[in-house]
Amino acid sequence: MIFRRALATFTPNLTPTIRQLLSPGTTANASPIQVNGWVKSVRRQKRVAFAVITDGSSTEGLQAVFTDVGLANRHVSMESRLTTGSAVKLTGVLAGSIGPGQDKELKVQSVDVVGQCDPENYPIMKRDMTTEYLRDYAHLRARTETFAATLRLRDSTQKALQSYFSELGFCYTHTPLIVSTDCEGAGETFRVQAPTSTTKLDQQVDPSSLATNDSSKRAEFFGRPAYLTVSSQLHLEVLAQSLARVYTIAPSFRAERSQTGRHLSEFWMLEAEWAFTNHVDDVCQVVEGAVKRALTQDSTDLAHLRKDLSDDHLASLEKASVTPTWARMTYTEAVDELQKVQRASRLFKFEPIWGSALRSEHERWIADHLVGGPTFVTDYPSTLKPFYMRWNDDGKTVACFDLLVPNLGELVGGSLREERLANLDKTMKIQGMDPTAYEWYLDIRRHGGAPHGGFGLGFERLISWMSGVENVRECIPMPRWAGRMLL
Amino acid sequence: MIFRRALATFTPNLTPTIRQLLSPGTTANASPIQVNGWVKSVRRQKRVAFAVITDGSSTEGLQAVFTDVGLANRHVSMESRLTTGSAVKLTGVLAGSIGPGQDKELKVQSVDVVGQCDPENYPIMKRDMTTEYLRDYAHLRARTETFAATLRLRDSTQKALQSYFSELGFCYTHTPLIVSTDCEGAGETFRVQAPTSTTKLDQQVDPSSLATNDSSKRAEFFGRPAYLTVSSQLHLEVLAQSLARVYTIAPSFRAERSQTGRHLSEFWMLEAEWAFTNHVDDVCQVVEGAVKRALTQDSTDLAHLRKDLSDDHLASLEKASVTPTWARMTYTEAVDELQKVQRASRLFKFEPIWGSALRSEHERWIADHLVGGPTFVTDYPSTLKPFYMRWNDDGKTVACFDLLVPNLGELVGGSLREERLANLDKTMKIQGMDPTAYEWYLDIRRHGGAPHGGFGLGFERLISWMSGVENVRECIPMPRWAGRMLL
Repeated sequence: MIFRRALATFTPNLTPTIRQLLSPGTTANASPIQVNGWVKSVRRQKRVAFAVITDGSSTEGLQAVFTDVGLANRHVSMESRLTTGSAVKLTGVLAGSIGPGQDKELKVQSVDVVGQCDPENYPIMKRDMTTEYLRDYAHLRARTETFAATLRLRDSTQKALQSYFSELGFCYTHTPLIVSTDCEGAGETFRVQAPTSTTKLDQQVDPSSLATNDSSKRAEFFGRPAYLTVSSQLHLEVLAQSLARVYTIAPSFRAERSQTGRHLSEFWMLEAEWAFTNHVDDVCQVVEGAVKRALTQDSTDLAHLRKDLSDDHLASLEKASVTPTWARMTYTEAVDELQKVQRASRLFKFEPIWGSALRSEHERWIADHLVGGPTFVTDYPSTLKPFYMRWNDDGKTVACFDLLVPNLGELVGGSLREERLANLDKTMKIQGMDPTAYEWYLDIRRHGGAPHGGFGLGFERLISWMSGVENVRECIPMPRWAGRMLL
Repeated sequence: MIFRRALATFTPNLTPTIRQLLSPGTTANASPIQVNGWVKSVRRQKRVAFAVITDGSSTEGLQAVFTDVGLANRHVSMESRLTTGSAVKLTGVLAGSIGPGQDKELKVQSVDVVGQCDPENYPIMKRDMTTEYLRDYAHLRARTETFAATLRLRDSTQKALQSYFSELGFCYTHTPLIVSTDCEGAGETFRVQAPTSTTKLDQQVDPSSLATNDSSKRAEFFGRPAYLTVSSQLHLEVLAQSLARVYTIAPSFRAERSQTGRHLSEFWMLEAEWAFTNHVDDVCQVVEGAVKRALTQDSTDLAHLRKDLSDDHLASLEKASVTPTWARMTYTEAVDELQKVQRASRLFKFEPIWGSALRSEHERWIADHLVGGPTFVTDYPSTLKPFYMRWNDDGKTVACFDLLVPNLGELVGGSLREERLANLDKTMKIQGMDPTAYEWYLDIRRHGGAPHGGFGLGFERLISWMSGVENVRECIPMPRWAGRMLL
């Protein structure tokens, strides 16, 4: 039964955002409106004063004009606390503007400073604040134009990706973050421990499931060791064997000590898995569609962030968006090309050898120079890849790919997943894994397990690549990395 | 700069889902199509055989008709492996159906069994499987109609809520799950530990930030103790002081031992925070709009789940959806009413006393009997609530609310947040908290901190309440609770 909704409470009592006020759909109007925001700058002239007001909804601020000189003097002066960073409620009339750079402005009738800000101590006052400086003010850096635009870009990108997957019949699912296996993360998986104060057992819980005499296992809250997930993939695979097409946008966790611009301890991934797919290229197609959807979204925030990019960088992004089909090459072909250029010019520090992982310098050269665009490198040697990837008939490679993009390197990784139990058994033995920990994973292969595949896309890397914001630490609101967690 | 997208790779090579095939927009057509899914049931007659195929995209399956008796015999027999649960790729023609219960059916031309399923060992064969039985098969239970419908309902509900908040100008933000404080969770907060194998320091990390002589603190990966978040609120408050309106749908974690149908160790919450709000009722309005949007969504899955509800239960949900404005009463008024009925009839096990928390039995009586509908109970005594809630002028209560709904109890909690530093200092002292751990939280009050408010809504509780699925363990794909984590 579907219920109708009462009409009364559709629209809660919220003022329009500045983005809404500045949109072409909102026209100048003689009725007074209320506008809330923070003062970005104040400029005084003899008979008039101007303040730019922002509420974080758009890059552009709203110009507020104080033509009543008395009002301007009372409120623009330091004493009256209308200072940069202060929170204000303005009442006024939205009018057409003759000034340059804006269509509309607010003719202010009254001002209420609801949150003071002492300019002497305001950390965001300074011009030319460095990235490092702003990292120390993780709780305030979203007040800057660039960082706020990046956060809104996360929102619109997530929306674009969700629309894409919804149109393709995928179901957004919520896989667990506390998991029972530490696969892949060998040595990089966070442990989850219950607080000691609750290790006392209560009567409702079977004590045998919670404590053992082995002190390392004592007080396991879930009756077994618990970890933070390094990828939602295995759980998504399970759901793909029921719902056919599933995806999630969720955090993953790695206790890695790499201090690069591409690594975080807590990062977000778009991960998708679907059943009834038999070719790596089918997986690549879904990836290409998703990344292009994000890359070409109609976002003023993205346009704003791209303003400072070099012409070369912009041309590279534009080329990626208009290329009908991105390049595909096998790992073997890639290594051939790498070896050719290495023989000719000794370009690389690390020798390209079949059977070894591609290094960052190799990946970047393929995307930046050899292809000059996003490139799916497929069919890596099985020894370089996790146990779950599907064996190719050659007995040496697996049906997988990495998507390499210019200026960044690896953006997406994916594969067909091995659905043949015998092959999984073999690979798990080779890799020294304990199959009993993966009984549920193996079991889905026994009961109508369809061939399937999927991928994982680093959300911060996507934001970084599309926008040119260089370090993933600036692509997430409150970054965590080794030694660093400010709030 | 906004880029256009090449047209070529818009639509990846995916077959239509059964939901798409069954939708009114898809008409019978003589061109053969491919359909993928799992066999739900098989029925043989003399010259024809029928199989219902499901791919998890809709409750209704697609009827596949085998009129070629040879084909039917070859494939419907056990020997040919077309058994319940097996994964199949069918090629055939979508045709109008004269059979009861469906408009369209697939006239099968060829069958490919791509994932076998031995009916002798298939755990989902049984009829009348209990909830408890299915919990033991967390990796397969999404093959059941009800559970798959619940998972799709999560997807559509998330979509409905995201549309709602997007329309209101809210930005979806990704706050951290690993956090530095264990507020609220006193004794119920999970600790996050780096793996011992990586406690060796590498040269890139400042050793002093990672290890101390105090063994309890040794090897803190982030240089300080790390916890799993119990709520995204404090971090959302920070972002609301830059972006004005923010929300998230994210997991929270509580190491609680309550074994009720309303508690999980890992659960999802919709949490929203926004600046420039001054009245609890403004917050309630946003909540009411959100819950009504979810409750009245046009979802065949929701309709399917409601099929088994009692008339009373249905009537109660319908009343909630058409009531123009849900009831509001203060905590003080609620306690008065509770005391009245207690004096008259000794209804409650726990005495209702001003200053004590409302018990479940009290909450249920208010929503189920006193009001007979969703009820916002506001302005609780400060002693019952966390430090961040805004003091009312009476000096005794705080500007907060709980939303109580029939058949469930508490669904949402929210408040204005205290923006006045002096009040926060006072409350933190009373509650014995260490202000230095919250320096960042206090600091946003110093720099243009606007009055603000927000709320948290338990996503599984919402799913449970709307659909009548009784236990939140059945409202999440892979539940975790004390002593239990299967995969």
